[in-house]
Amino acid sequence: MTHEDGSVPEASASTIDDLLQEMTLEEKAGQLVGSFVGKLGEAERSPEDVEREIVDSGVGAVSPFGIGISTRDDPELAVETANRLQRVAVEETRLGIPLLVPVDAVHGHAYINGATVFPHSIGMAATRDPDLVERAGTATSRELTATGATLNYGPTCDVARDQRWGRVFETYGESAYLCGELAAAEIRGLHAPDDPMGVTAKHFPAYGQPARGEDASAVDVSESSLRRDFLPPFERVLDAADVVMPCYNSIDGEPGHSSERFLTDLLRGEFGFDGVVTSDWGGVDHLYQYHRTADSRSTAARQAFEAGLDLVSVGGPDYAETLCELVRNEELSERRLTESARAVLELKASLGLFEDPYVDPERVGEDVGCAAHRDLSLDAARDSMTLLENDGTLPFDESVDDVLVTGPNADDLHHQFGGWSVMDESNLEGVTVREGIEAVVGEERVTYEQGASITERLDVEAAADAASDADAAVVVLGEDWYLHEFGPREVSQPTGEFPTRTQLELPPAQRDLLEAVTETGTPTALVVIAGRPLSIPWAAEHVPGVLFAYYPGMDGGTAVAETLFGRNDPSGRLPISVPRSTGHLPTRFDHLRHPTPIGDAEHPPSYDPLYAFGHGLTYTDFEVRDLRLSSATVGTAGTVTASVTVENLGERSSARAVDLFVEDVVSSRVTPVREHVGCAKARLDPGEETTLSMDVAVEDLAVHGRDYERVEPGAFVFECADERVELTVESRSSM
Amino acid sequence: MTHEDGSVPEASASTIDDLLQEMTLEEKAGQLVGSFVGKLGEAERSPEDVEREIVDSGVGAVSPFGIGISTRDDPELAVETANRLQRVAVEETRLGIPLLVPVDAVHGHAYINGATVFPHSIGMAATRDPDLVERAGTATSRELTATGATLNYGPTCDVARDQRWGRVFETYGESAYLCGELAAAEIRGLHAPDDPMGVTAKHFPAYGQPARGEDASAVDVSESSLRRDFLPPFERVLDAADVVMPCYNSIDGEPGHSSERFLTDLLRGEFGFDGVVTSDWGGVDHLYQYHRTADSRSTAARQAFEAGLDLVSVGGPDYAETLCELVRNEELSERRLTESARAVLELKASLGLFEDPYVDPERVGEDVGCAAHRDLSLDAARDSMTLLENDGTLPFDESVDDVLVTGPNADDLHHQFGGWSVMDESNLEGVTVREGIEAVVGEERVTYEQGASITERLDVEAAADAASDADAAVVVLGEDWYLHEFGPREVSQPTGEFPTRTQLELPPAQRDLLEAVTETGTPTALVVIAGRPLSIPWAAEHVPGVLFAYYPGMDGGTAVAETLFGRNDPSGRLPISVPRSTGHLPTRFDHLRHPTPIGDAEHPPSYDPLYAFGHGLTYTDFEVRDLRLSSATVGTAGTVTASVTVENLGERSSARAVDLFVEDVVSSRVTPVREHVGCAKARLDPGEETTLSMDVAVEDLAVHGRDYERVEPGAFVFECADERVELTVESRSSM
Repeated sequence: MTHEDGSVPEASASTIDDLLQEMTLEEKAGQLVGSFVGKLGEAERSPEDVEREIVDSGVGAVSPFGIGISTRDDPELAVETANRLQRVAVEETRLGIPLLVPVDAVHGHAYINGATVFPHSIGMAATRDPDLVERAGTATSRELTATGATLNYGPTCDVARDQRWGRVFETYGESAYLCGELAAAEIRGLHAPDDPMGVTAKHFPAYGQPARGEDASAVDVSESSLRRDFLPPFERVLDAADVVMPCYNSIDGEPGHSSERFLTDLLRGEFGFDGVVTSDWGGVDHLYQYHRTADSRSTAARQAFEAGLDLVSVGGPDYAETLCELVRNEELSERRLTESARAVLELKASLGLFEDPYVDPERVGEDVGCAAHRDLSLDAARDSMTLLENDGTLPFDESVDDVLVTGPNADDLHHQFGGWSVMDESNLEGVTVREGIEAVVGEERVTYEQGASITERLDVEAAADAASDADAAVVVLGEDWYLHEFGPREVSQPTGEFPTRTQLELPPAQRDLLEAVTETGTPTALVVIAGRPLSIPWAAEHVPGVLFAYYPGMDGGTAVAETLFGRNDPSGRLPISVPRSTGHLPTRFDHLRHPTPIGDAEHPPSYDPLYAFGHGLTYTDFEVRDLRLSSATVGTAGTVTASVTVENLGERSSARAVDLFVEDVVSSRVTPVREHVGCAKARLDPGEETTLSMDVAVEDLAVHGRDYERVEPGAFVFECADERVELTVESRSSM
Repeated sequence: MTHEDGSVPEASASTIDDLLQEMTLEEKAGQLVGSFVGKLGEAERSPEDVEREIVDSGVGAVSPFGIGISTRDDPELAVETANRLQRVAVEETRLGIPLLVPVDAVHGHAYINGATVFPHSIGMAATRDPDLVERAGTATSRELTATGATLNYGPTCDVARDQRWGRVFETYGESAYLCGELAAAEIRGLHAPDDPMGVTAKHFPAYGQPARGEDASAVDVSESSLRRDFLPPFERVLDAADVVMPCYNSIDGEPGHSSERFLTDLLRGEFGFDGVVTSDWGGVDHLYQYHRTADSRSTAARQAFEAGLDLVSVGGPDYAETLCELVRNEELSERRLTESARAVLELKASLGLFEDPYVDPERVGEDVGCAAHRDLSLDAARDSMTLLENDGTLPFDESVDDVLVTGPNADDLHHQFGGWSVMDESNLEGVTVREGIEAVVGEERVTYEQGASITERLDVEAAADAASDADAAVVVLGEDWYLHEFGPREVSQPTGEFPTRTQLELPPAQRDLLEAVTETGTPTALVVIAGRPLSIPWAAEHVPGVLFAYYPGMDGGTAVAETLFGRNDPSGRLPISVPRSTGHLPTRFDHLRHPTPIGDAEHPPSYDPLYAFGHGLTYTDFEVRDLRLSSATVGTAGTVTASVTVENLGERSSARAVDLFVEDVVSSRVTPVREHVGCAKARLDPGEETTLSMDVAVEDLAVHGRDYERVEPGAFVFECADERVELTVESRSSM
């Protein structure tokens, strides 16, 4: 870029000071709003429209692709658009400040045709493998930068504490520990040194426990639960995050987007975050449209910026003008806008945009959807496969004569991808379960009969007849493509039909198909492709093999087929509990201790899932033994290392992940029955054994209360598989 | 009573000062513990055992009857026991301090044979009639004092915000306003001038939204929700309450029984309560047994008393000794125990116990279960009847030839009473639905076939056959007798079977019976006798008439029969929403406003009950019109009166209750979509009209936040039936 005087600004503080010095109020306000190219409801913005916004209003951020409302899914078109818009910003504005180009790359750059689509985060969490998550982040970063994107709206740091919620699949599950570790790994990956990419920790401070499982409804939790259950993933990643996105919902009556308590006192003050706070899409509009904590857009903007917001992600020129008016009317200080502009400019500088905002169009061909990335996606899908039930039927024998493949998700890439990916099915690349099985056993040995759509019976009888004639049957059920509250309707089911927040059971059409096929007596496997842990009590009791595949990404069909036929040994572990029914909600492994006033015998268990957090079968037999701690006593700081021996007693090479839990035996405030504090994974040949180590920071044993967070001396019981060992924390500050 | 020196102490502060001056540590501690006569698990205490406790340990409170574990249900025996124990306390202890005699009179003195059993509170709330609740309280107080009880563990001030909870029926429903008004009315009634009776506001500060609907699990709500949804009933009644009982559960990590924040800062400090704080049964034990916030009973006792507890309700001599040890070991100050002893003695003085702790045995025959009280119970049951569905089938014609009566609750007084009443069925007095219908149409015209138990099919076919032959069919379904987590097992179903917290749907056996009878085409009415609002979607669609009778008390069968046959016009209004399914929970009329990020059209409604709060049909046709306010503008204090005209346009005399709601149009914190702020009821003959007035304190329009409570100027929309009217609050302190 060239500055007005011909010099090239550098990414230094003094340059940014100079820039800010030079900027008019309007130019600052422009840096604090974003726009998009695409179609949102009735409104459609072309690149030409946005060029005008950049020139006339100084709009500083544009999402021209890589998002749901984009009309530009083609990677070459994306590059062309990014470069073209950057050129306008750099060459046709007074100060030549380059653009931020944010995208929603939730599971790979999945809104771009041909890009690598990874399993969704819920599946990635089943791998218990931060290294894999990191490598997927790096691959994603490479594909993002290849198209000219500069900021990802991820990772999701939300903890999914209601299985009904439509965004469960975007999370790393119900363990705050796992969410933090994997979000940190994703950030390490996205921050690949060769591909500078901004990352966003979202949605601060708490989004994943919306009332009724209803997207964006209030997360109405106590202060101690907020600090124990929701903040840890943010605390884990904020040092590394460039951007924070507030949650849409309110907490304790305060909407995330206008809460000074959360965005300034907590985020900036207590946590020391000094990056950019960007709105989630309509987050500022919502203040007057829905929360009604503002009476107008102007008030909403004032509240949001006073609370600590820096950037209205898709506010466009109108919001820039609103901000200017607020300053002119002395309702908002220019100093506040200058602070935000500084944060935005510093982000742009740190991403190297002032040096070179352009991308080489050649990179698309090299990087987007390249073989190495697809291999990685397939590996991730393999490792995510979570075997819930197996009476010995699985793995099927590859030499089987005739396999029936049936169900709405057996041959539907769109459903297999899940939300936050290209909606036009004609452009999808990948392998379905049907295709995967055909590749394993030979196309001629596979009979396919869809049997049911997501909610409608098709020819169930034909599927059952084919099952009777087959040697094995694979029923692939679950959910379709959706986001937020199970929309939008142009790709998902009608509003209120499954998948919907009130229902975790399979719809009758799918149950009928499963029952008809299973009841033929032909060895049957159920494969669930879904974003949420569905309640499948009938299948748990009657179907010989049940595999949860989550949304396994573009090559998920291959991973499923390999797993069913024993080419891949399943090693995934549930990152979220599978409830018995919606009547059992909330079903969480880490519920708080509480009395049972008329006795335990009168009281069904507080945690009684169909499948517990951490459940996952393998095809071999592992022993987990000798849980030990590096020290039996520690002070109130430092680290304790838990180690456990894992041995493969079976006949097959396989992997075993273990989860480490801790219970605080006595605490000043009520604590959970157990907290998840570690995980590790071993790949072992038959007869092989290894010792896995897990470091636990003693500070993670802290008790949380309102205005209270302290590691309390006393006994803590660690638990891993069936092993238990006690730690004593003494009142000294280190070991 | 006589003092040691022969003088008669008076109920004056100076006397209590003198007493305290004279009391040893042990005597003070004795006043701070209670005992019981009865059988709790393996432990059984006879009156002789308790006499020894009084003499040897100075135990100051005894529950010898009127509670679930009592073995003395006979009223004469109760009186004899009360007088005998008082005599020991007065004559055989050094200071002669009389006893507190607390009971659990939840719906009348129902643990005493022959006492008047009123509908449970959830049904009383359906009447929307504080005067009726007050009269029931007076009747109860009369029966309580007639047996020698001096303190009632009620009213329940809990707001039922999870329909699954096993204690829903003990509450006045889901509206904090209604809970507060009716608890206040109950206290006015219990505080009848002729019958001094101590009352207990319970369970402070929040119990009615346990996680998972699981009794005594954490109520994990934000500070603003605590203040908006749970505290108002307590604020409403604390001036009048003698005693406060903390909740078993924890809130924000703090168990109710050991929270200085709740018991001292909030209750004594902010709310100015100066009465006695008594534990709920095992509430202190729970601290070390379950919450694990204490490591021993001794620590638990110290924490509880430091937090502000005054009395361990059933702690007995062991806890008295523990308290003494704590003082001797300087772990607890004697001053703290003296404060508690003063509160207990002041309560005893205020109840007149120092003047006369005895009861005239003649009163039992006059008062317990007297005709006037039974009439009142029947009136209450009549007014609670809530007609959920009617296609015109109801009322049935009394001259019908043959009525089939069927279902597990058609002829079972025990189920009809509901929990917190005598468990031995042989001693129950009352009228079942079957008997009530026989009384209306003549015994010879009634065919009875049970058809099903609560969970088992009996002869469903016989019931269906009888329905086919009948002119009308009444199917009486629902729940049995239970308390807390649907126990105890000796009277209720096995643990985990319906009724259980995970299930709001009728069990299959009951559904089968209902469907078989309904499908005969014979005009059918479903009567639900249950403590919780059951999800009955099939019945809602297919059964011509559906009546919710709650637990209607001893003469509930008469009230149901009269309602079905038109001798009583139903006028009950739901005090709690009936959810469509457990997947729809929480289902609350006053949920918080929130965004719908991808549009309302993609988003099923946030409140979509099967039957809404306030729903209730009548047999006539009422018009509600002309909602008006006493003033279109008010200041931030004072009162505004809403009035509405109700006219009976139909042909039958009947009653119409109306509910008044308000919405805060714009607020600094997120507020509910509507809040319940008033109700009123009119009884009108055909063609008659009247104007109902409802006073709303402007301070009840306050917005709640953490450390924030303020009436905010701006617009408020009041809603009653289909009428809406706007109020403007101006920033001045009065009108």
